Amino acid sequence: MAYQKPTGTQDLLPGTVETWQTIERKARDLCQRFNYKEIRTPVFEQTDLFVRGVGETTDIVEKEMYTFKDKGDRSMTLRPENTAGVVRSYVENKLYGEPDVTKLYYMGPMFRYERPQAGRYRQFHQFGVEAFGSVAPSLDAEIIALGYQFMKDVGLSGVRVEINSIGNAPSRAAYRQHLLDFLTPMKETLCKDCQSRMDRNPLRVLDCKVDQEKFKEAPSILDSLDEECATHFAKVKEYLTAMGVDYEVNHRLVRGLDYYTHTAFEYKAQGIGAIDTVGGGGRYNGLVADIGGPDQPGIGFGIGMERIALLLEKQGVVCNDAPPLDIYLVGLGEQAEDEVTKLLYDLRKAGIAAEKDYQSRKMKAQMKSADRMQARYAGILGDDELSRGEIAVKELATGEQRFVKLSELADVLKQG
Amino acid sequence: MAYQKPTGTQDLLPGTVETWQTIERKARDLCQRFNYKEIRTPVFEQTDLFVRGVGETTDIVEKEMYTFKDKGDRSMTLRPENTAGVVRSYVENKLYGEPDVTKLYYMGPMFRYERPQAGRYRQFHQFGVEAFGSVAPSLDAEIIALGYQFMKDVGLSGVRVEINSIGNAPSRAAYRQHLLDFLTPMKETLCKDCQSRMDRNPLRVLDCKVDQEKFKEAPSILDSLDEECATHFAKVKEYLTAMGVDYEVNHRLVRGLDYYTHTAFEYKAQGIGAIDTVGGGGRYNGLVADIGGPDQPGIGFGIGMERIALLLEKQGVVCNDAPPLDIYLVGLGEQAEDEVTKLLYDLRKAGIAAEKDYQSRKMKAQMKSADRMQARYAGILGDDELSRGEIAVKELATGEQRFVKLSELADVLKQG
Repeated sequence: MAYQKPTGTQDLLPGTVETWQTIERKARDLCQRFNYKEIRTPVFEQTDLFVRGVGETTDIVEKEMYTFKDKGDRSMTLRPENTAGVVRSYVENKLYGEPDVTKLYYMGPMFRYERPQAGRYRQFHQFGVEAFGSVAPSLDAEIIALGYQFMKDVGLSGVRVEINSIGNAPSRAAYRQHLLDFLTPMKETLCKDCQSRMDRNPLRVLDCKVDQEKFKEAPSILDSLDEECATHFAKVKEYLTAMGVDYEVNHRLVRGLDYYTHTAFEYKAQGIGAIDTVGGGGRYNGLVADIGGPDQPGIGFGIGMERIALLLEKQGVVCNDAPPLDIYLVGLGEQAEDEVTKLLYDLRKAGIAAEKDYQSRKMKAQMKSADRMQARYAGILGDDELSRGEIAVKELATGEQRFVKLSELADVLKQG
Repeated sequence: MAYQKPTGTQDLLPGTVETWQTIERKARDLCQRFNYKEIRTPVFEQTDLFVRGVGETTDIVEKEMYTFKDKGDRSMTLRPENTAGVVRSYVENKLYGEPDVTKLYYMGPMFRYERPQAGRYRQFHQFGVEAFGSVAPSLDAEIIALGYQFMKDVGLSGVRVEINSIGNAPSRAAYRQHLLDFLTPMKETLCKDCQSRMDRNPLRVLDCKVDQEKFKEAPSILDSLDEECATHFAKVKEYLTAMGVDYEVNHRLVRGLDYYTHTAFEYKAQGIGAIDTVGGGGRYNGLVADIGGPDQPGIGFGIGMERIALLLEKQGVVCNDAPPLDIYLVGLGEQAEDEVTKLLYDLRKAGIAAEKDYQSRKMKAQMKSADRMQARYAGILGDDELSRGEIAVKELATGEQRFVKLSELADVLKQG
């Protein structure tokens, strides 16, 4: 019998994986320039961390987690997102004791048991950043700009940012009341989910996909912001404008997770049909304390790698900076084949990408492989050449051929 | 309450993660030169794949797997190793249909519920390669040399390889009989595990940690190899010698997994006490068919990243090629701070690693941050400089300072 990968997961194979490698390299480069350092937390954590850190009433916690008992009978969960794990690590490792703002990034697999669809997988991957220890609006702007620049760097077009402020706790309490005043008269006409959300978390009603039309006249949270919140938000917008980030305010953007404060934002891009959100994030000034740490503010984003890869494909953008194969060595005869095996290792040690045949095929088949692999050169070694300590080097694009001393091959190839 | 990471897992934090990044970059570079392409398979697979692919009687399958039911009531297991997953993917995606030998590498987390100890974790990480479709001894030698070169490239010393041949099925059947003839008279004196292994898998008796002394006179599998196996093994050794790989034959090396044939090998290095094996691998010419694929030979290795990181530490080797911070910008006064936020983004877009303060601290504290972050330059912008469109650039190592036009800052920094 043959085995299959689990439903909703992917194999990333050669031919596709190079795009992922390139995207990740660009993300790492960008983080290095923005002075964010990588953090790697475990793939699973205590279940309770996510219940607390993501929010008990969220779809993620209620429906989508991969939860299991380990052999020590402890409840563990494959991380459904990475903010909770990073905050846990920040607190457990006392990173808040450092004098500078803590600026972190991560890349890796996340897990949610959802219905698989285009660009949505049960094992999916996120690139994200989290910064702790500053309430400066310039940090909000920096983080928004970092994600924006990332999407431009990988070559996506039509990238823009929607931003909003969901204020601090008092502003949100005031807004909650205004929103309930607006929703209550229409409660009976709303979908069941919305009716239930009205009681538990009225802001999430605005996320509803069914009832959007009815909320056109809903009050804006921006009208409920107190002075501190309004000033913070104005400053963030001012910086984004100065930086040339293409953004617009969307006062409906409230996001599904409970721990956000002040700035909330989403990244959008063209070409993926109904799903045009590639990632998002915001401030979560209350989360660190919530998880048992000191009262330190935080802000971050998460961007879906599958979404990025899908969008690149839809936009027809090639994002692949994998270096080419330098040379394919063809050995003719047993003695030459042995020499090729050794020569190959010498070239590779010297920094040259080199390949040979492993199936004792005829020269013609080997030359076809060299073409298929888009090798720059083919190196042909027969007994004649071997006895002279030389190899025939053929440039495949031009067909030009010359003889090179075996001892000089690495240097010749390095010079291009 | 504060949360903790699960027992046996690690947080990789800034300061440590750079070593991992460097090790991984070196592994990727090496694979590119050896023409191995990356494959990424899911973190979990159907449980049965591992039972079949790793072997029902192994410790891994019997005691160490993280197995759970998903919400669709299917038994899934976090991968305890990655050969089974790669073989599953090779078969499912019909990679055997390609005309060339399939040469793959992977890096990522694996999971085994073991007692945590130095260099051994429940979530651990492996770098591995797998190649399919060739029985050429030059491929065995290439793979052994690739892992060997990897450990040298990261800077480890005292690296060597132990190799053995465990032959094909007929050779192994012959050896099994010789070994039983040797073991049977002493059966009563052996540990319980060994007695049980004698019935199920006598070769694994040689792995026993308790009874090693008694096996000094055990027959060597090398004496049971048929001509095909002996020729293959001789050729592998000949290539390794030609390549300058530091190896020795260890006829006791039989490895715990059932699917190996012909060449088996382990990588050893100095300095980790009792545990001096860093990784290992071998040929598994029967596995692909076992897992439901065509009869295609395979060979590969897996190297433990935690082991590599621990050994580097023990040997006092610094393996960190993270680029430095180019400039730390200090803004004095509100207007200059605003300019710094924008300038920072311009520099970063231009490829320069740049940082600023986010806590409205005094100049002295900011200069300390610049030092702590080992920035090459500090850029100081006050109202005076701003009005002239300039910034003071101070080289921190020398204390030398000069004024640079804001519009030229990126270019000046790029020129170093």
